Amino acid sequence: MPRDMGSVVLVGAGPGPADLMTVRAQRVVQQAQAVLYDALVSPEVLALAPAICIKIQTGKRAGLPSMNQQTINGLMLKLARQGLRVVRLKGGDPSVFGRSGEETAFLEAHGVPVDIVPGITAVSAAAAQFAFPLTHRGQSRRLVMATARVENGEVVGEGWDAMADGDATLALYMSRDSLAEVAERLIQAGRSVATPALAIENAGSAEAVAIHGDLGTLPALLRRAERSGPVVVVIGAVAALARCEETGSARDALPANKRKGLG
Amino acid sequence: MPRDMGSVVLVGAGPGPADLMTVRAQRVVQQAQAVLYDALVSPEVLALAPAICIKIQTGKRAGLPSMNQQTINGLMLKLARQGLRVVRLKGGDPSVFGRSGEETAFLEAHGVPVDIVPGITAVSAAAAQFAFPLTHRGQSRRLVMATARVENGEVVGEGWDAMADGDATLALYMSRDSLAEVAERLIQAGRSVATPALAIENAGSAEAVAIHGDLGTLPALLRRAERSGPVVVVIGAVAALARCEETGSARDALPANKRKGLG
Repeated sequence: MPRDMGSVVLVGAGPGPADLMTVRAQRVVQQAQAVLYDALVSPEVLALAPAICIKIQTGKRAGLPSMNQQTINGLMLKLARQGLRVVRLKGGDPSVFGRSGEETAFLEAHGVPVDIVPGITAVSAAAAQFAFPLTHRGQSRRLVMATARVENGEVVGEGWDAMADGDATLALYMSRDSLAEVAERLIQAGRSVATPALAIENAGSAEAVAIHGDLGTLPALLRRAERSGPVVVVIGAVAALARCEETGSARDALPANKRKGLG
Repeated sequence: MPRDMGSVVLVGAGPGPADLMTVRAQRVVQQAQAVLYDALVSPEVLALAPAICIKIQTGKRAGLPSMNQQTINGLMLKLARQGLRVVRLKGGDPSVFGRSGEETAFLEAHGVPVDIVPGITAVSAAAAQFAFPLTHRGQSRRLVMATARVENGEVVGEGWDAMADGDATLALYMSRDSLAEVAERLIQAGRSVATPALAIENAGSAEAVAIHGDLGTLPALLRRAERSGPVVVVIGAVAALARCEETGSARDALPANKRKGLG
């Protein structure tokens, strides 16, 4: 006799600290019977899962490559078919660059009930931590979240002219290694080299570091800083409003009196 | 002798249900001595504040107009100068269309310590609730959050060509009354009339309603539905992936078997 079908909940782990998860996300993780978690999920978040819960890391670790999506899908299905409450735990928000669409479609096609619990996405955590807005009256009417892939020294894909939109705040995810090419492409498309720009490593966590510059200077500043953690880059007028005193690295921060206030 | 200065925390109340606040946001509200809250903050969230806390509604209510920003700023300052722990509670995320920049600048210019706690923004709540992604491999490479102001039947402001970007998911906030003009403007700028589009009222709450259509049909469908709650509109391929069975209104929902899966 087949067991009852379990379920999968895609849960946003947020930016790192467990108290930046939603209350619902914490509750779901605390009741999980199996957790598949990405490399960006913090140990503090993972510790919320019950001690007897099955825990499987799906991201890169100890030099091993990430599992591919097919393997992850297969694992979720197998665990759900064993009747378990499976949690698929992702850094940030599962709906934003989190492949929630692919995983949801696969699981539903196989008859597995799926729920999604949202999470705080990296740029939102960065804005809160460094006290700058993502939209701002008269300066930044829109917020664009994007990512970039670089091949042979060039940014792949269309739409970069649209992303040079001077009225928008551009948040670039997973952009540590592609920033030089992206900045060049945006400048080509007409965005000013003097546009304020900010790179935040480990946004939202106690170890967060903000590097201040502009579209022209930030790629070199970021490279020189030799950061290895996840980075979100914010390009646009609002980047100049970011607080500096919370940066972990005094070397990279402008003095507080250079902060452009609106008072 | 002057009292010690209090503080202000700008807190994202999220989309409505208290368990979609972050754990940190709940804790800050539970420890507040004064709360200034927007009209979009739910009674359930407000109930987290202590019974003896000062509670001031800043949004429209009972036919009275909203307080202007200057009045809100002055109130926060006055309460902070009384040494209180003030919470400025906003629906969604304070950094996204929440005027956090203006309030932070004003308070810091007056020597008031300010912190920000992020919240789940409406479109993220909508995506989780109706199980569609905001970015999706090969279809929706970017997410644009925008709002629109209409004057004399025309959308005000530049940048709509950029927002017609066919590779992006466009999330329109506060767009219930401007959708017809925005859709027309996007179509003029080259976005296909057949682009899937979805209007979600009260995203994230138990009363949420999703209205499915495309860029050509959604304005009339939304008007006919005569919704009065806050609406976020999602335009782009991902809108076709939204689940229908969770809509509160069967009239507005497509049958589940019309859901475009990827399986």
